[in-house]
Amino acid sequence: MTQIKNAQNVRLFALNSNYPLAEAIAEKIGLPLSKASDNHFADGEIKITIDESVRGCEVYVIQSVSDPVNTNLMELLIMVDALRRASAAKINVVMPYYGYARQDRKARSREPITAKLVANLLEMDKIDRLVTIDLHAAQVQGFFDIPVDHLQATSLFANYFNKQGLINDDTVVVAPDHAGVSFARKFAERIKAPIAIIDNRADEVREQTVQEVPEYVIGDVKGKTALVVDDIVDTGVRMKLSAQALKKFGAKDVYGVATHAVLSGNAVQTLQNSQLEKLVVTDTIHLPEEKKFDKLVQLSVADLLKEAIVRIHNHQSIDTLFNR
Amino acid sequence: MTQIKNAQNVRLFALNSNYPLAEAIAEKIGLPLSKASDNHFADGEIKITIDESVRGCEVYVIQSVSDPVNTNLMELLIMVDALRRASAAKINVVMPYYGYARQDRKARSREPITAKLVANLLEMDKIDRLVTIDLHAAQVQGFFDIPVDHLQATSLFANYFNKQGLINDDTVVVAPDHAGVSFARKFAERIKAPIAIIDNRADEVREQTVQEVPEYVIGDVKGKTALVVDDIVDTGVRMKLSAQALKKFGAKDVYGVATHAVLSGNAVQTLQNSQLEKLVVTDTIHLPEEKKFDKLVQLSVADLLKEAIVRIHNHQSIDTLFNR
Amino acid sequence: MTQIKNAQNVRLFALNSNYPLAEAIAEKIGLPLSKASDNHFADGEIKITIDESVRGCEVYVIQSVSDPVNTNLMELLIMVDALRRASAAKINVVMPYYGYARQDRKARSREPITAKLVANLLEMDKIDRLVTIDLHAAQVQGFFDIPVDHLQATSLFANYFNKQGLINDDTVVVAPDHAGVSFARKFAERIKAPIAIIDNRADEVREQTVQEVPEYVIGDVKGKTALVVDDIVDTGVRMKLSAQALKKFGAKDVYGVATHAVLSGNAVQTLQNSQLEKLVVTDTIHLPEEKKFDKLVQLSVADLLKEAIVRIHNHQSIDTLFNR
Amino acid sequence: MTQIKNAQNVRLFALNSNYPLAEAIAEKIGLPLSKASDNHFADGEIKITIDESVRGCEVYVIQSVSDPVNTNLMELLIMVDALRRASAAKINVVMPYYGYARQDRKARSREPITAKLVANLLEMDKIDRLVTIDLHAAQVQGFFDIPVDHLQATSLFANYFNKQGLINDDTVVVAPDHAGVSFARKFAERIKAPIAIIDNRADEVREQTVQEVPEYVIGDVKGKTALVVDDIVDTGVRMKLSAQALKKFGAKDVYGVATHAVLSGNAVQTLQNSQLEKLVVTDTIHLPEEKKFDKLVQLSVADLLKEAIVRIHNHQSIDTLFNR
Amino acid sequence: MTQIKNAQNVRLFALNSNYPLAEAIAEKIGLPLSKASDNHFADGEIKITIDESVRGCEVYVIQSVSDPVNTNLMELLIMVDALRRASAAKINVVMPYYGYARQDRKARSREPITAKLVANLLEMDKIDRLVTIDLHAAQVQGFFDIPVDHLQATSLFANYFNKQGLINDDTVVVAPDHAGVSFARKFAERIKAPIAIIDNRADEVREQTVQEVPEYVIGDVKGKTALVVDDIVDTGVRMKLSAQALKKFGAKDVYGVATHAVLSGNAVQTLQNSQLEKLVVTDTIHLPEEKKFDKLVQLSVADLLKEAIVRIHNHQSIDTLFNR
Amino acid sequence: MTQIKNAQNVRLFALNSNYPLAEAIAEKIGLPLSKASDNHFADGEIKITIDESVRGCEVYVIQSVSDPVNTNLMELLIMVDALRRASAAKINVVMPYYGYARQDRKARSREPITAKLVANLLEMDKIDRLVTIDLHAAQVQGFFDIPVDHLQATSLFANYFNKQGLINDDTVVVAPDHAGVSFARKFAERIKAPIAIIDNRADEVREQTVQEVPEYVIGDVKGKTALVVDDIVDTGVRMKLSAQALKKFGAKDVYGVATHAVLSGNAVQTLQNSQLEKLVVTDTIHLPEEKKFDKLVQLSVADLLKEAIVRIHNHQSIDTLFNR
Repeated sequence: MTQIKNAQNVRLFALNSNYPLAEAIAEKIGLPLSKASDNHFADGEIKITIDESVRGCEVYVIQSVSDPVNTNLMELLIMVDALRRASAAKINVVMPYYGYARQDRKARSREPITAKLVANLLEMDKIDRLVTIDLHAAQVQGFFDIPVDHLQATSLFANYFNKQGLINDDTVVVAPDHAGVSFARKFAERIKAPIAIIDNRADEVREQTVQEVPEYVIGDVKGKTALVVDDIVDTGVRMKLSAQALKKFGAKDVYGVATHAVLSGNAVQTLQNSQLEKLVVTDTIHLPEEKKFDKLVQLSVADLLKEAIVRIHNHQSIDTLFNR
Repeated sequence: MTQIKNAQNVRLFALNSNYPLAEAIAEKIGLPLSKASDNHFADGEIKITIDESVRGCEVYVIQSVSDPVNTNLMELLIMVDALRRASAAKINVVMPYYGYARQDRKARSREPITAKLVANLLEMDKIDRLVTIDLHAAQVQGFFDIPVDHLQATSLFANYFNKQGLINDDTVVVAPDHAGVSFARKFAERIKAPIAIIDNRADEVREQTVQEVPEYVIGDVKGKTALVVDDIVDTGVRMKLSAQALKKFGAKDVYGVATHAVLSGNAVQTLQNSQLEKLVVTDTIHLPEEKKFDKLVQLSVADLLKEAIVRIHNHQSIDTLFNR
Repeated sequence: MTQIKNAQNVRLFALNSNYPLAEAIAEKIGLPLSKASDNHFADGEIKITIDESVRGCEVYVIQSVSDPVNTNLMELLIMVDALRRASAAKINVVMPYYGYARQDRKARSREPITAKLVANLLEMDKIDRLVTIDLHAAQVQGFFDIPVDHLQATSLFANYFNKQGLINDDTVVVAPDHAGVSFARKFAERIKAPIAIIDNRADEVREQTVQEVPEYVIGDVKGKTALVVDDIVDTGVRMKLSAQALKKFGAKDVYGVATHAVLSGNAVQTLQNSQLEKLVVTDTIHLPEEKKFDKLVQLSVADLLKEAIVRIHNHQSIDTLFNR
Repeated sequence: MTQIKNAQNVRLFALNSNYPLAEAIAEKIGLPLSKASDNHFADGEIKITIDESVRGCEVYVIQSVSDPVNTNLMELLIMVDALRRASAAKINVVMPYYGYARQDRKARSREPITAKLVANLLEMDKIDRLVTIDLHAAQVQGFFDIPVDHLQATSLFANYFNKQGLINDDTVVVAPDHAGVSFARKFAERIKAPIAIIDNRADEVREQTVQEVPEYVIGDVKGKTALVVDDIVDTGVRMKLSAQALKKFGAKDVYGVATHAVLSGNAVQTLQNSQLEKLVVTDTIHLPEEKKFDKLVQLSVADLLKEAIVRIHNHQSIDTLFNR
Repeated sequence: MTQIKNAQNVRLFALNSNYPLAEAIAEKIGLPLSKASDNHFADGEIKITIDESVRGCEVYVIQSVSDPVNTNLMELLIMVDALRRASAAKINVVMPYYGYARQDRKARSREPITAKLVANLLEMDKIDRLVTIDLHAAQVQGFFDIPVDHLQATSLFANYFNKQGLINDDTVVVAPDHAGVSFARKFAERIKAPIAIIDNRADEVREQTVQEVPEYVIGDVKGKTALVVDDIVDTGVRMKLSAQALKKFGAKDVYGVATHAVLSGNAVQTLQNSQLEKLVVTDTIHLPEEKKFDKLVQLSVADLLKEAIVRIHNHQSIDTLFNR
Repeated sequence: MTQIKNAQNVRLFALNSNYPLAEAIAEKIGLPLSKASDNHFADGEIKITIDESVRGCEVYVIQSVSDPVNTNLMELLIMVDALRRASAAKINVVMPYYGYARQDRKARSREPITAKLVANLLEMDKIDRLVTIDLHAAQVQGFFDIPVDHLQATSLFANYFNKQGLINDDTVVVAPDHAGVSFARKFAERIKAPIAIIDNRADEVREQTVQEVPEYVIGDVKGKTALVVDDIVDTGVRMKLSAQALKKFGAKDVYGVATHAVLSGNAVQTLQNSQLEKLVVTDTIHLPEEKKFDKLVQLSVADLLKEAIVRIHNHQSIDTLFNR
C-alpha cells in the first residue's frame, strides 16, 4: 500500500455532502480529517471557519456537488476562499460527483453551459487541481486549464460482476441511449463483451422528463445477461424502461450499473419495482438510509480516492489507477 | 416621469427570488418581463433556457440573493452565463438584496470573505454592472471593478416617518450596535436627528447568535421616539433586544427600521412580540404571506429601481436619486 | 433575403485557407472582401498588413483551420492581433472548419486537449465571437466563454438526399463508430430514419491509424440504403471500411456523408475505390482540383454562413437557421 | 523567540519610506538587509537595480505607502517588477502603513475607490502576500484575493497604558467619530473599558477639512481618563477637537492613541498645543526629527513585524499574534 | 478642418501635468474641458471627484507622465478608476509624454522594465486606448494589447526647419548616440538628408550620468548644418556634448531637436551655454516660465492631438497624420 | 563544472526543431532527454503524448521557433498544454531562436505586433520562464511578465575571432543597418573595437525584400578587417551587400557574424558567392546538411544553454554568464 509522504504537511477536509466517504478515505490514508466549523444559518447563508492552521499545507477538500447541489457547490467555493486567504500552499478539490456535468453543451439556443460555469467558478477561486470520477462527458476535463485527475470506477464494477460470475460469453453491455455509447463502450472493452444500444427515439436532455415511450434495441440481446451501464442514475426511469425494453427483446436478466446514484424523486420505488435484478452503484454520492433498497448494491470508491490522493501528493503517476 | 429610450433594445428578466417586485418594476417602466424557462429538478440542479432573442440587447436581470441564498445566487450566475452566450450586449444585474454582504471581512483567522467571493463570481461571469440597495458596508462596492450603482432606501423611510408625523425634536435615531453607526448616521443626518448607540458588549458577528445579554445605550433616549435603524433585520433578536434596552433607558416609543427583511427562523414571532411599535422594511426581499405580521410595514423599492434602470439605460445621472 | 444593416460599418476579410468560399459569402452579402496584404516569407513567417481602415468597424474574418492547420491558425491569430490594434470595434471569427477539434479530451494520461488550447488562443487574442459549423463534439462550445454560433450542415445533406429521392422507408443512417452516434442521430431524426452503428472493436482515436480490422454492425441494414454520417472524413479509411462492413451485412447501397472534407493522405484514391456510391461533403474546407473525384459531391455552406453573418450583424435570432 | 528557518533562502529589502524600522526588523530576525540600488533622478523617475541574486528566494519587501505616497507606492511597484523578473520565488510585501486606505468606498458619486486601486496595482504586479497593520477598514482585506496578514497594534497600546497605570475603572475609550467606532471598540474590549463617541455632526471625509465645529459626546466621560483611539492621526485637528470636546464634557485627562502617525501640515503644532496629555503612536510611518514633539510617544512595531515575518516564513500560525 | 461627431457624447478631461496644452486642444476641438475636483492633501494623497456625469460618454483624459512622474501617473490611474466606476463608455488616455519609457528593457540583471510596468498599470485599470507621441522605442507599443495610436512630431520639426531655410544639401541629421539612430533616421528620411552618429564610447543608460568624455563622430559633418535629433532632452548634457563634438569635427552650425523637453536639473543653463544655435522642442511637457530660455523654440502638438482625437472619435483613419 | 541538483526532479524534453542541440545540452547536463510521442498527421495536425510521468517535476522544453515557424510554435504550445495538465511543477521553455522577433513594433498602420502575440500565446499557456538568446530587440523581454533569461552569444564570437587572431587595432565592427547599431555596439565594446554603420537608404523591414541598392558606409573601414555583426542572417542579401559596400569603401577583409542562421531561400548560394571570408553563426537553429557551405562556421550554444539550465535549476545567478 502506498504511504503518504510528508504527512505533517497534508490537511484533509470534508464538507457536508459526503462525510462518511471522506472519513473512509482519511482512515485509509492514515490521517485525521482536519477541523472546520461549517454553519448554515436560518437564512441559508453558510459560514465556514477553519479551526487549525493550514499555512503552507497541501490541502485536499472532499465534496460532491450532489443534492442540494447549489448549497454544496457554494460551500466548496467558500471553503476554498477561506483556505486561500489562510495561506494554504495547494488546494486540491476532490469531487467524487461533479454536479451539473450533464449541462455540458448548448442543446438548444440560449441555454447556459453550466458544467463550464462550475469549472469557471472553481478556477476563479484558484483551486490548484480537481480530482473527480466518471464525468458525464470526457470533454468536461477541457473546461479546465488546471490539472484534472479523472478517475474511473470501471474496475469496481468489473470486479463485482466477475465475483458474481456474471461475465461470460452471454454477457452484453447495453448503453441506455445514444449519448451513453462511449461510456458503455469503455466498460464493454474492459470485460470484453459486445455492446447493444437502446435507441430512444425522443431527444431527451434530462432523464426526469423521459416519457414511457416504446424503446428500440439495436444489437443482439436475446437470451443474454444485459448490463445497462450509465454514468448517472437519476430518476431511475431510463433504467426501468431500458430493462423493460431489453426484456421485450428477449434478454434473460438485466442488471443496472451507474457510477453516480442521484436517485432523485421516486427513483427508489421506480427502480425497486423495475425488472432489474440489481442496480450496482458507488458511494460518490452519499445515500441516506431511506434511499437504500433491496436491489441496490453500493460499492465504495474510498480505496480509489485514497490511492489517488496519496499518489498525487507523492508526485507518483496515477495512470495505472485507470486500469485497475 | 423619465421614459426609457430605445425600448425595443431592452430586456427585463426576473428570476425566482422576487417576482412581484420585478413585475412592479417592469410595469412602471412600461415593458413586459421577458420570457425564460427556469426549471429546478428533483436533484436540485437548475436549468434555464431563455425563450426570446437577446442578441445585441441591454439586459436587466432582477434577482435578490435572499433565502435560499445559494440557489438564488446560482440561478443568477447560470442566467448570466446563458445571456452572455446568447450575445446579449450588456448584462446589468439588479440585486435589491446582496446576500452574504455581512461576511465582508475576516473577523477571525481563517475565515473566508464571502461578500468578496460573491463579487468575484459575478465579475468572472462577466456582468457589466451591479445595481443594489443599502449594502451592509459601503466598502463592498470596492469588491467590484465594474460600475456599481449603490442606491439608498433612506428617502423611503424618511417619507414614511414624515407622513406619520414622527419626525420632530423628540426623535432620536439609534444604531443597534457599533458596526451599524455609519448606516444609522446617514439616516439621522437626513432627518436631522441626534443619534444614540446600543453598546452590545459581546463582539457578535451574526445576529443569529446574539444572546439575551444586557445592553447599554450610549446617548440620550429618555422620553424620546427612538428609530432603531439597521440595514438588515434577520432573526429579529437584535431589534427586540434594542427595543428592550431603549425602553429600559426611558425611550417613549421604539420603531424598527431595516432595508432588508430577511426575517429568518422565529423572526416573525420575536418581532411581533417585541416592544417595537412598528417594524418598517422594504420589499428588496420578497415576503410570503406567513412572514407578514401586524407590526410590519413594507415599503416598495419598485419606484427607486424603476427610476435607476431607466436613467442607467438613458445614460442619465442617478446621483440625484441618492437624495430623493 | 435578409439584408445587412449599416453595411458601411462592416468589413469582411478572407485569409488563405478558403478564399473561394469567402468570396461566395461576400458576394451573397453584397459587400466586397476587404483588402489585406498577407505575405508568407521564405523562413515560414507570416506578415499581415491591413490595407484599409477598420476603426470602429464590425469585422468578420473567414478562415478554416484546415491543412496546413498550424499556419492557418497562426495566420488567423496574427490577423486578429492586427485588427485589435487597428481599433476594430468587434472581431467575429467565422471558422467553417475548426481544426484540432478531435483532440477534445484526454483519451490517455499526459495528453494535451488541443481543441481547448485553440479556444484559449482565440480568447486570449480577444475575439468577440466564433461562428463555426458541426464541431466534432458539441462540448467544444463550452471551451469558450464568448458567444459561439454553432451552425449545422444537416439541412444541406437532407435537401440533397431528398432531391435524389433517397429518403424513404428503406433508408438507414449509420454512425461509423460509437463516438459518432450523437452526430448521426441528429441527422436520422431530421430525416426520420432508423439508425445503425458500426461497432469498431478497436479504440482508435485517429482515423489515420485505423487498421483493416473486421467490423461489426449493430442494427438492421439488410437491403437498405445506408447513409454513413460523420462530421469529418479524413483519410477515408473509416468510410471505406464502413461501406465494406455494411455491404457484408447486406446493405443495398452505401452513401458517405461528412461535413468536413479533410481528405488527407491517400483519401481520394481510398474513397474513389471504395464501395460507396457517393461521398457527399461541404466546402468548409477548400478542395483543390486534385482532391476532387468522381464519387465526390460538394455542397456549399456559403448560403448558411451568409445568412448567419447577416443575422448576427443585424442582431436577429439565428436559431431558426439550425432547423432549415 | 521564534527562529527563522532556511535563512539562506530569505531576502529582506527595505525601500525608502521607513529604513530605520526595516533595519530594526532585520536585526531582530538576525539577517542583513539585502542590497538594491534605488536612484531617484532629477525628473522624478525612479530606477532600481537589485544588487544580489534573489533566484528562488522568499523575499520580504518593507515599505510604507506614506508621504510621499505616490513615489513610495511606485517605488514598491517597480521593486516588485524587478524581483519577479529576477526569479524571486515568493514576493511578500510588508506594508506597515497602507496609504490611500481611507478612500475605501464611494462616499459620493463619481469618486474613485483608491484603496481598491492600490490593491489592484499590487495584485497585477503579482505580489504573493501582503502584511499590514490596522487597516482603516477591515473590509480593505477583501480588496485582495491573495492572503493578507492583517496585524493589530492594539497590544502595544494596551501594554503602554498598563505600564502607565492608566487602565482602571475610570478609563473610557473614545471613538473620535462614528466611522471609528469599530476600531475603538476593539481596543475597549481588550482593556475591558466602556466606550464613548464624539458625534461630529458634519459628514467629513478627510481630517484635513475638518472645521472647528462644536462637537457632541455620546456616552459617559465625566471625571474619566479618556483614551481617544483612531487608526490614523493626520492633521491632528480631529484629535485636538476631540480633546476639547471631552474636556468640555468633563473628562479628567485625555490621551490620544493612533497607530499611524501621518502628522501632515501643521499637525505637530496643533497636537502639541492641544489639551491632550500624550499622543501615543507607532513607527509604521517614519517620523523625521522635526515631527517629534514633547507630547509624542512612539512605540515600535518592529517586534510585531519580526514575529509575523518569521512565522509566515516558517508556516506557523500567526493568529496568536493578534491577541498578544 | 475635421469636426467631431456626436459632441454631446464626448468628455475631455485635463489633469495637472499640462493644463495649457489640454486647453489648447479643447479649444481647437470646440468643446470645453469637463470639470473634476483634484485635491492633493498635505500627506501627498490625491483625491479626485468628477463633477459632471460621464455615463455612456467617450472620455479623453489628457495627462503627461512628466515631473513629478509618480504623482502624475497615480493621478491618471485614480482618474481612470473614477471614470470606470462612473460608467464612462470608453476611456481614452492621451499621454503626450510617456514617462519611464526609457526603462524599456533589462540593460543589466535584476532590473525592472518600468515602461512595461506603466503599461500593465494602465491596462489593469481598463483604459480602452492610448494616444501618445514619439515613444523612446517603438517596441513600447507592443507592451500594450489595447490599441495605441502612436503619433509623431516629425512633421512639426520638418516644417519649422523648412521655414527657417535650413534644409538643403548641406544639412545632416545627427543621432546623439547609437540607441537613437532609428529615431534620427526617420527624420532624416523625411527631409531627405544624410545621417551621422555620435559614437559615445561609454555605455550610458541615463543622460543624467553622462560624463564629459571625448566623443567620436561617425559620418561626414564638415561644413554642414547639423541637426541633432533625439526623442528626449533631459539634463541637456548629451545635447551639449554632441554640439561640442560636432563643432570639433567641423560642423558649421548645430541645432538641437527633441520632442520631449524634460529639462531636469541644470538643463536650462547647460543648454543656453552650449554651442547649439537653437534647441527646438514641443509642448508635450509643460514648461514653466523659468525653464524657458533664449535658445529654446517650443512648437505645439495641440493641432496634432486635436486632429487625432477627432479622427479617433469619428472612426476615421489617422495614419495620414503620421506623414503630415 | 556546475552540477545540477535534485536531478531526479528534472525533465528535459526536445521537440522537433533542433534535436541535435537538445541532445548536446542533455549530454552536458548528464541527463537523458525524456520521452514523448510527437506525431504529425497527414492533415497537418500535431498530436503529442508524454511518455513518462512529469508530476511535480521541473521541466525544460527545448524548441526553437525556426522554419517551419508556425508548426514549431504550435508544437511548443501543445507540449506545454500537455505538461500543465500532467501536473508538471514548473515549465521552463528554452527557445534558442525566438521566431517572429523582428515583428516587434508597428512599422506601419494596421500591422500586428507578432512578437508580442507569441509572448501572449506563451503566457496564456502558463509557461513559468523563457530562456532565449540574442533577441532581435531587447525590448521583447518586456513583452513578458514572467522571468526571461536573455542570454548572449557575444562571448562565443569573441572567442572565435580571438583564436583566429583577427582582433587587433585594425578590426572594425560594422552594423549592417541603422536598426542593428545597438546589437553591433555590444560586440564592439566587448572586443574594444570601433564601429561603422552601413547606411541603407531604403527603409526595409524584412531582409527578404532588400534590393540591390547602392549602400553608404558611415565610419572608417579603409584597410581594416570588418566584422559585420547582426542577430539574424536570413536571405543573406544584406550580408552580401554589406560585404560589397565595405569592399567598395576599402575594407581589407569582411567577415559576417550572426547568432541565428535562418538561411532562407537562396541564402546558401548568395553567401557562398559573396565577398565574405567567412560567415560565423551558432546552432540556435538546426542546419540540415544542404544548408552548410564552405564559408560557414557554426559555433555551438550547447555549453551556454547547459550552464543556464543548471544555474536556473540550482537557483544560482546567471548574470556572470552574460560576460563569459
